[in-house]
Amino acid sequence: MESIALKTADVIASALLSRIQAGEFSGRRLPAERALSEAFSTTRITLREALGKLEAQGVIYRELRRGWFIAPPRLIYNPLHHSHFHAMASEQGRQATTEVIAAEQVGVQGAIATALLLPPGTPVYRIRRLRRIDGRAVLYVEHYLNPRFFPGLLDEDLTRSLTDLYDQRYGIRYGGARFTILPGPLPEVAAPALNVAPGSPGLLITRINRDRQKQVIDCDCEYWRYDALCVDVEA
Amino acid sequence: MESIALKTADVIASALLSRIQAGEFSGRRLPAERALSEAFSTTRITLREALGKLEAQGVIYRELRRGWFIAPPRLIYNPLHHSHFHAMASEQGRQATTEVIAAEQVGVQGAIATALLLPPGTPVYRIRRLRRIDGRAVLYVEHYLNPRFFPGLLDEDLTRSLTDLYDQRYGIRYGGARFTILPGPLPEVAAPALNVAPGSPGLLITRINRDRQKQVIDCDCEYWRYDALCVDVEA
Repeated sequence: MESIALKTADVIASALLSRIQAGEFSGRRLPAERALSEAFSTTRITLREALGKLEAQGVIYRELRRGWFIAPPRLIYNPLHHSHFHAMASEQGRQATTEVIAAEQVGVQGAIATALLLPPGTPVYRIRRLRRIDGRAVLYVEHYLNPRFFPGLLDEDLTRSLTDLYDQRYGIRYGGARFTILPGPLPEVAAPALNVAPGSPGLLITRINRDRQKQVIDCDCEYWRYDALCVDVEA
Repeated sequence: MESIALKTADVIASALLSRIQAGEFSGRRLPAERALSEAFSTTRITLREALGKLEAQGVIYRELRRGWFIAPPRLIYNPLHHSHFHAMASEQGRQATTEVIAAEQVGVQGAIATALLLPPGTPVYRIRRLRRIDGRAVLYVEHYLNPRFFPGLLDEDLTRSLTDLYDQRYGIRYGGARFTILPGPLPEVAAPALNVAPGSPGLLITRINRDRQKQVIDCDCEYWRYDALCVDVEA
């Protein structure tokens, strides 16, 4: 019985893939599971198995309470470069948007204090933003800034590029970066903003940035949907 | 009912974490689920929920048909460096082993042909290896070598470092690299060797390596357990 069910799911996955590649679905959203199982004359169980196979191949993805979507191409991302997010997206023919979730002064703690070379409890600026590519939430980011370099920055328009703001208002440019990439489940703080269940696979990219005088000026904690990016670094 | 069950799983997860941190379990393997549910006077369902929480935090991990293990520290890995795998592990106080799964000449295809700048069908060496850290399978890798640079290499002992072999037998040293990191589900080819189910989260790291004259000499396709490494790159 099991092998018959598997074969059916494979056949359905293959047929659905052909229809996706042929551009048969208007927009990126797939029809509801009920409609799909009727269209393929199959059960919800077998349909879900077929959907799961296409999900594992990165062809489609699921959003909480919203259903299934056709996966867009991944963003090519070099964490060593500081071309800003909107410029990076538009160079790849994509549309970026940025939403500020919160911007406030907090006492720095733990690993962020270490990264910024500041004693725990020192006031820093924390800016939480959500970034979308072509309308899809792909990146939840927390920026931690040493306010010594950026007095009054919280009063600025923070939907714009920090790279531009640093340069134009403070005359500060990036001069070096170190990043770590930690693959792992997305935590409670990031998952809801990205429309996925906590624990879904993601990437945490932490960047420590220096200015041209090699002083540490900020630290970014980036939480990415795993299927939204391809990291690409050349030495 | 649900909130009571959740609280119980949280309490058990917390108690189990304390016992792990106190070093109460000899070795890295946890007792069987039946023994654990008896020890915590709970049901298998609640115990599994607690284990799932610790798994999401990276504290423990599951191996197919072998049970639950305490997660070791991640290996710190810079794909731009060519210090070989065993040296990298030993610098971090870890023990590396390498097993050769297969080594043969094949006609190069698709993305690998593009990477090696060779026409499809050109003979290349393909070496498939499994690498363990402290006994745990963490990396399944396929090396594709342009045989023009390495005549007769398949007759060598391929459990040793290719970096050393290139240098000592062929006088070739690495002179530049480009890598991409693609987070995604582990495919059928890699998952069984890593003792995980196909579709489990992983990282595919593809490296294209050049010699000192900037000629492309080989390409590595590395499939990592997601929880085995932390990528760390400084510019």
